[in-house]
Amino acid sequence: MLSGFHGKILEINLSNGKHRVTVVPEEDYRLYLGGSGLAARIYKQRGYDRFPPLSEEAPLLIMTGILTGYNIPTACKAAFCGKSPATSIWSEAIVGGYWPAVFKTNGFDGLIITGRADKPVYLHFGGGEFSIRDAGLLWGEDVYETSGRLEAEHGGKVKVAAIGPAGENEVLISSIMIDGHDARAAGRCGMGALMGSKNLKAIAVEKGDLMPDLSDRERLVQTRKKVLPTIREKAKGLSDFGTAGGVPMVEKLGDLPIRNWTGGSWAEGAARVSGQAMAEQYFVKHYACFACPIGCGKEMKVPLGPHRGTVSHGPEYETVAGFGAMCLNDDPEYVITANDLCNRLGIDTISGSAVIAFTMELYEHGLIPRNLLGDLRPEWGSGESILKLIRQIAYREGLGEYLAKGVKKAAEHFGPLAKEFAVESKGLEFAFHDPRAFTSMAIVYAVGNRGACHLEGLTYFNENRAYPGSMIGLKDDFDPHGSDDKALLAKTMQDYMATFNALGLCKFLIRGHVTPAVIAEWVSAVTGWDFNREELFRAGERIFNIKRVINTGLGISRKDDTLPPRLLAHERGEGAAAGSLPHLGKMLFEYYKLRGWSPEGIPLPETRERLGLG
Amino acid sequence: MLSGFHGKILEINLSNGKHRVTVVPEEDYRLYLGGSGLAARIYKQRGYDRFPPLSEEAPLLIMTGILTGYNIPTACKAAFCGKSPATSIWSEAIVGGYWPAVFKTNGFDGLIITGRADKPVYLHFGGGEFSIRDAGLLWGEDVYETSGRLEAEHGGKVKVAAIGPAGENEVLISSIMIDGHDARAAGRCGMGALMGSKNLKAIAVEKGDLMPDLSDRERLVQTRKKVLPTIREKAKGLSDFGTAGGVPMVEKLGDLPIRNWTGGSWAEGAARVSGQAMAEQYFVKHYACFACPIGCGKEMKVPLGPHRGTVSHGPEYETVAGFGAMCLNDDPEYVITANDLCNRLGIDTISGSAVIAFTMELYEHGLIPRNLLGDLRPEWGSGESILKLIRQIAYREGLGEYLAKGVKKAAEHFGPLAKEFAVESKGLEFAFHDPRAFTSMAIVYAVGNRGACHLEGLTYFNENRAYPGSMIGLKDDFDPHGSDDKALLAKTMQDYMATFNALGLCKFLIRGHVTPAVIAEWVSAVTGWDFNREELFRAGERIFNIKRVINTGLGISRKDDTLPPRLLAHERGEGAAAGSLPHLGKMLFEYYKLRGWSPEGIPLPETRERLGLG
Repeated sequence: MLSGFHGKILEINLSNGKHRVTVVPEEDYRLYLGGSGLAARIYKQRGYDRFPPLSEEAPLLIMTGILTGYNIPTACKAAFCGKSPATSIWSEAIVGGYWPAVFKTNGFDGLIITGRADKPVYLHFGGGEFSIRDAGLLWGEDVYETSGRLEAEHGGKVKVAAIGPAGENEVLISSIMIDGHDARAAGRCGMGALMGSKNLKAIAVEKGDLMPDLSDRERLVQTRKKVLPTIREKAKGLSDFGTAGGVPMVEKLGDLPIRNWTGGSWAEGAARVSGQAMAEQYFVKHYACFACPIGCGKEMKVPLGPHRGTVSHGPEYETVAGFGAMCLNDDPEYVITANDLCNRLGIDTISGSAVIAFTMELYEHGLIPRNLLGDLRPEWGSGESILKLIRQIAYREGLGEYLAKGVKKAAEHFGPLAKEFAVESKGLEFAFHDPRAFTSMAIVYAVGNRGACHLEGLTYFNENRAYPGSMIGLKDDFDPHGSDDKALLAKTMQDYMATFNALGLCKFLIRGHVTPAVIAEWVSAVTGWDFNREELFRAGERIFNIKRVINTGLGISRKDDTLPPRLLAHERGEGAAAGSLPHLGKMLFEYYKLRGWSPEGIPLPETRERLGLG
Repeated sequence: MLSGFHGKILEINLSNGKHRVTVVPEEDYRLYLGGSGLAARIYKQRGYDRFPPLSEEAPLLIMTGILTGYNIPTACKAAFCGKSPATSIWSEAIVGGYWPAVFKTNGFDGLIITGRADKPVYLHFGGGEFSIRDAGLLWGEDVYETSGRLEAEHGGKVKVAAIGPAGENEVLISSIMIDGHDARAAGRCGMGALMGSKNLKAIAVEKGDLMPDLSDRERLVQTRKKVLPTIREKAKGLSDFGTAGGVPMVEKLGDLPIRNWTGGSWAEGAARVSGQAMAEQYFVKHYACFACPIGCGKEMKVPLGPHRGTVSHGPEYETVAGFGAMCLNDDPEYVITANDLCNRLGIDTISGSAVIAFTMELYEHGLIPRNLLGDLRPEWGSGESILKLIRQIAYREGLGEYLAKGVKKAAEHFGPLAKEFAVESKGLEFAFHDPRAFTSMAIVYAVGNRGACHLEGLTYFNENRAYPGSMIGLKDDFDPHGSDDKALLAKTMQDYMATFNALGLCKFLIRGHVTPAVIAEWVSAVTGWDFNREELFRAGERIFNIKRVINTGLGISRKDDTLPPRLLAHERGEGAAAGSLPHLGKMLFEYYKLRGWSPEGIPLPETRERLGLG
């Protein structure tokens, strides 16, 4: 009798409407923990990497973790995985809310969707059954409208994962959105385009009665009780003001990217667009994902545009950094409205704001042909330009046709100098924590399995002591601008964070000072395995490496493990990280050795052997 | 009345056989000093950069310097300039011997050759005239044979610049060779292919009686007398054993690239292939370029192959490093024979040996398809493979079809991992001084106007005190592995060295401890200008920047100012530079500021204004 997971995955081929149920051995769950770990295992095992991302054969793997859906703090996540249409390498976009936990009650741990429907469809799960349904009337509608209509259609009982027009139009920076107005995003790597390419508009799930067993409820209750007070205390800032509450502190640390990564300080602007400032004027209510004691979600009133006055998800830290600091826009009304617009249209706010800041720099340098500009004047700080460009991107109109591809591909259209302004790694735009402020992040971004992702390491939390190194067996005091011990920090946190994306946990647990031992305890309680901290890290290492092995098979090596020149060779003259530049080469070489990779960044045969990666 | 130069350049269009004489204002000579400085000025002024390197319209500019041809230590050089077929950016290949000084006696400072002859031709200068002559019988012959036949044809009175089969076949790593067996090479950037594309096999020059006047002979004699003893003393090692005499010391400093830049020490091998060891067994005689008191040239007996027993130019340091250490070949007989073969076929020994070491690494990793290998087994150290590959490259046969393009373009044919083994910058293979041993060289290679060239900076001489920094107004003690003050060192030496390529001087003058003030004195004595050290450096800065401006117009910027990952992120475990990696980003940012370039590496308007670059 399995506990913690069904051991079953539903596969649906949208080309012919056929489906089958695949049974996955328990051993694979123990080694890969579900979520994006198990998804990577299946992806590799089946050789899915041979299919181009937008081909009919390319799979979209949606996987919950073995903790997802239990009453464990933040155990709310699912992973949307496959080959990224933006980067053409391994991709995972992790999302919380209620959809994942509800999905899991339908008798499957995950979905593998292949093929392409001949007309727009959505999937419906409910009453122990699933069906492929016509989505002709939903196609073209935005995410909130789509979610609302499906909720109405199904008696208010469904949670919805949906794409917007951006995903339909195969915009390479499009997202998959969850839970309507209480929005959560599977944002990065253009997974919306992957879903859109299958003519799949949405997946609506009702709560079922097929949740897997739980091995030791009492043990879980006790562990939960022990850690809840600390989580609530340490993560209080998130509860009060959401992730956007961090903006002023991040600016103060020199960690906030400003003016497409060229600026060093922006204190007044940061204060104006902070979560604290927005809360005063626009806040409507708090909300939380499934099982989350933090509740970082904030709903706000949209201040501008056609949706003015409606209530929407309030912008996250990344969104404020992007549509605020990156674009030099200090008007919170445009930030909130841009966020709402991206959510509706299904655009990743990180890549979306990055490509718009990039556009503003192109414009400053006169690199955009007049005929492409039309009446657009995308000057630094222009909120109206931000809103216009978001629409152009979603519909691939005008400049949007180029920007929809992300900064790397867009840069190719605007002359060689444009590449200087494209801040990306492996084709993915950087998230908004500066590797010049916390140099461990240089490694995390450079070797990130899905490109320049902050969440694969999150080591700035360790460097600024929001999650002291001692919690994971390392030292507490890292020199934020130095190179010492950063390789070990990056490796350790990457392995640890990989287990979160597999188990179904939110990474804000580390803000709540949860240790690996506690997480191992949860795994034991849920599954009945005798699981411990060491096995957790081994799993994390295995999971991190299987993604690397997938990517090296796709041509990735050391040459790709780098940062754009702006982050390697552009000192900023002001702010807390003025003058700091990461010594990437030095850290990377040490990192590869720790990983058991060749100097070219390829996992060595003995490393693959040790981790059972063949 | 002009002194030091004719003020006249001969332009020949080989498509129609027409020629004209262009008068260049004295002011341009004073600002750009002739040689590759004046060539760059003309190249930019005429907008030659719009022509692809192998197009009919593309020019080959051959320029002597204002000191070339006078009795000034090492004043023997000419510059072969244009757009490199290998890199598609500015290129200059500088060469000494007698040809340049003899050319200058024919009434012109330089040649601009455009067009394409409809059949193979050579140019002949003599008796105050020049002619375009049929080279049908020379086409296909090697360099030594060609030179010998032209000498015979013209009564032993000509010096010859010629290409070999590699240049004829537009091999992108082909050279232009000078002076027959007393060989000197305009080696880098594939200028042989540029000449070959014009169906121009050779340029044979007789000594004329049109040497420009000399302003103050007595002043020159006095200055020369003062410095000669020091030059002879300090550069004695070069006189005794040639550049190859430096191999053991370079190895000891961790500066010798070993096994395609992965190894750290190779002391026994270095001893076996050193200039000292070769001198014992194969040495025939010393020779010197025009006006050179050092005489680093060595003739040696070819020990292997069809030319066994003939006397040929002995391998230089770079050639020994390339066909020795880079390929792990410690048999001097193969080094000498490979050098002879490259000279005959007209292949740059730096790029040629680099691409062969690269091939050996490809082979080690099984990346070369069997059908391309034939009976070739290019294992590390295989001298026979080296010789076979040189021939394949010259004739573009088998593997040679790919290798003839240089490592960057070749790597594209052998899968993504192959790029890890391609050690190049801007498409040019690195010369064989390791930027991990002397980190100032990281800047020099990264920003080199013709790509990864050591000669644009030569700062390892400063770092190892062969040319103490105080000679150019800097400190003497640089930490070879640190980053401090390296930007200023690189800039200063680049500006200084740019004047050598313009004036017609050999850079071994710095081994002879000649200071900028002495060189300014020579310029004054020759031209009659009141020239000083400051004006010399201003000219050097102007010259370095005009090439940068040409290149930025061709799309070059910071993104291209980098080193391959092997040199940035591959610590070596042994040798004197074990563990050292250059912090390129840090040095580069400082360097751009010193240069007056934007953080993206573009010369700022005020910098261009200051230097008169429009």
